[in-house]
Amino acid sequence: MISDIGRNGKKRWAVGVDFGGTTVKVGLVTSAGRVAAVRVLPTAELRRPAQFIDGVARAVAVLAGSSGTRVSQLAGIGVGAPGPVDAARGIVRSMVNVPGWREVPLARRLARRLQCRCVVDNDANCFALAEWRFGAGRGADDLICLTLGTGVGGGLILDGALYRGASGAAGEPGHMVLDPRGPRCGCGRRGCLEALVGAAAIVALGRPALRRSERLRTFVRDHGGRLTPRLIGRAGRAGDPHAKAVWAQIGRRLGIGLANLINLFNPECIVIGGGVANNWSLFAPAMRVTVRREAMAVPARAVRIVRARLGDYAGIVGAAVLIQTHQVM
Amino acid sequence: MISDIGRNGKKRWAVGVDFGGTTVKVGLVTSAGRVAAVRVLPTAELRRPAQFIDGVARAVAVLAGSSGTRVSQLAGIGVGAPGPVDAARGIVRSMVNVPGWREVPLARRLARRLQCRCVVDNDANCFALAEWRFGAGRGADDLICLTLGTGVGGGLILDGALYRGASGAAGEPGHMVLDPRGPRCGCGRRGCLEALVGAAAIVALGRPALRRSERLRTFVRDHGGRLTPRLIGRAGRAGDPHAKAVWAQIGRRLGIGLANLINLFNPECIVIGGGVANNWSLFAPAMRVTVRREAMAVPARAVRIVRARLGDYAGIVGAAVLIQTHQVM
Repeated sequence: MISDIGRNGKKRWAVGVDFGGTTVKVGLVTSAGRVAAVRVLPTAELRRPAQFIDGVARAVAVLAGSSGTRVSQLAGIGVGAPGPVDAARGIVRSMVNVPGWREVPLARRLARRLQCRCVVDNDANCFALAEWRFGAGRGADDLICLTLGTGVGGGLILDGALYRGASGAAGEPGHMVLDPRGPRCGCGRRGCLEALVGAAAIVALGRPALRRSERLRTFVRDHGGRLTPRLIGRAGRAGDPHAKAVWAQIGRRLGIGLANLINLFNPECIVIGGGVANNWSLFAPAMRVTVRREAMAVPARAVRIVRARLGDYAGIVGAAVLIQTHQVM
Repeated sequence: MISDIGRNGKKRWAVGVDFGGTTVKVGLVTSAGRVAAVRVLPTAELRRPAQFIDGVARAVAVLAGSSGTRVSQLAGIGVGAPGPVDAARGIVRSMVNVPGWREVPLARRLARRLQCRCVVDNDANCFALAEWRFGAGRGADDLICLTLGTGVGGGLILDGALYRGASGAAGEPGHMVLDPRGPRCGCGRRGCLEALVGAAAIVALGRPALRRSERLRTFVRDHGGRLTPRLIGRAGRAGDPHAKAVWAQIGRRLGIGLANLINLFNPECIVIGGGVANNWSLFAPAMRVTVRREAMAVPARAVRIVRARLGDYAGIVGAAVLIQTHQVM
């Protein structure tokens, strides 16, 4: 199962933990960013802090055992959590959609339990660290990472380091208002990037397309019946013009958001990941045209906009990078 | 004229040059950020690079002479230029509204002429450096500086250093699109922050107010007749409700822009300067209310939004800070 056990002589492996809505993934990550082994646990059974710590501790023990390592030989354990984190103090302030997490000193509690170094950060920051060190943003000093899904998350690498801001809350491109008369956002405002290109926005654009198009209705009926971004993506890839128009509109909206970010940050690279990015070929052309038109010439020339590369394991890798790069104050 | 000549024993004075639309200001700046002496030259006579270098060289010689210093004893000469600058190589790429400046290696040419160290940067970056080191943003690690005037400029201090981006073009909050159906911007797009709160936008909001209000018309006629942001400010301070409504609207628009910046950067401090900021008491209340409503709670709590403190000399001081802090790669 694990091929490079021999390279673990110098405590160079780290464990990355990705706390997702459906699963908690615990992975053993080499210093080269390779995921050597993974345990996937159902989030439903690890929802409370004590359960989570228990579950992670057991998974780490199994992973270490199966690779002939002792936990004390690991470089450490990094955790990416979906919500605001005080990374300096290792405290999870709260978790999106998971009650019972209020100011939990997770790094300290995990370290006490496992007797090794533990760090915690926001999952979008972990994603950015992973893509920067081992993925599509490799080598860039100034990098913006976006995750497109139900929400729109982000992480910023600026001047060669993770940028956290004054209270660890930097990098919320999802809540940049782009259109004050736009659709209502989950945050209560109107026309945030998330309200314009998040999953709900894609479905909202899909509904009138569905009404207009007999063909799309048939396609949806034949594929489970529920209108989702994934299904609108399938219809688009199958050549449906109405579905393709939805993605072109998403691409244009995203392009305006990216142009703002490009004018503000003048980044070398923008990496786009998350489930919705699987429809890259459908939205990227309109996105690029809009960026060319909307961004200022000098920063537009400097940036390359690319799709994330690490896929499902980006969260694990990024959480491990937290340890490897000491990206914690 | 100069009171602290005695403190110039250790080459600690620097010269700051502020290349403005009307005047070029050349100042001798102490290491504490005090402007010890200034020469103000008409921009009209210094428009070409050779004229500018000549004029600055003569001004520096006069300033040094009058303070009993030799030019060779200065820490160096910093220049803030209105336009894109390649700060690493000391090249002015172009100047806003001043023809004849295309890829001018100003730092090298000035250094050769004056036989001392010279650096060049964008004027908005100089403003940010000045307010960060000696002004309203003192002590902040993460600071956004905005200048409100004909245009909306900006400079970013992130993690305790000037942030330039991949090609030195970072920090253009003026061209963040906030409303795709908003007024046309000078950059060709619609609804940029600059198009919403720049001088032209203030006048555009003032015109219907003028049509509706006999009182405002009389006020304007009695004060020169031409509708300008300055005059709308005077009318507002004199209590005119229509003029006050214009500023409240500007405050709300600015508040949306600031909320976006706060959500993205989670800054400790936002410093607002430029001529239009002289109407602070008229637009700041609506701006603050909007920020409270529009920004996310955690970063909104972390930020203080303050008016710039260094006034007309910020450009000189910031250009000198370029030398003092070696804020050039």
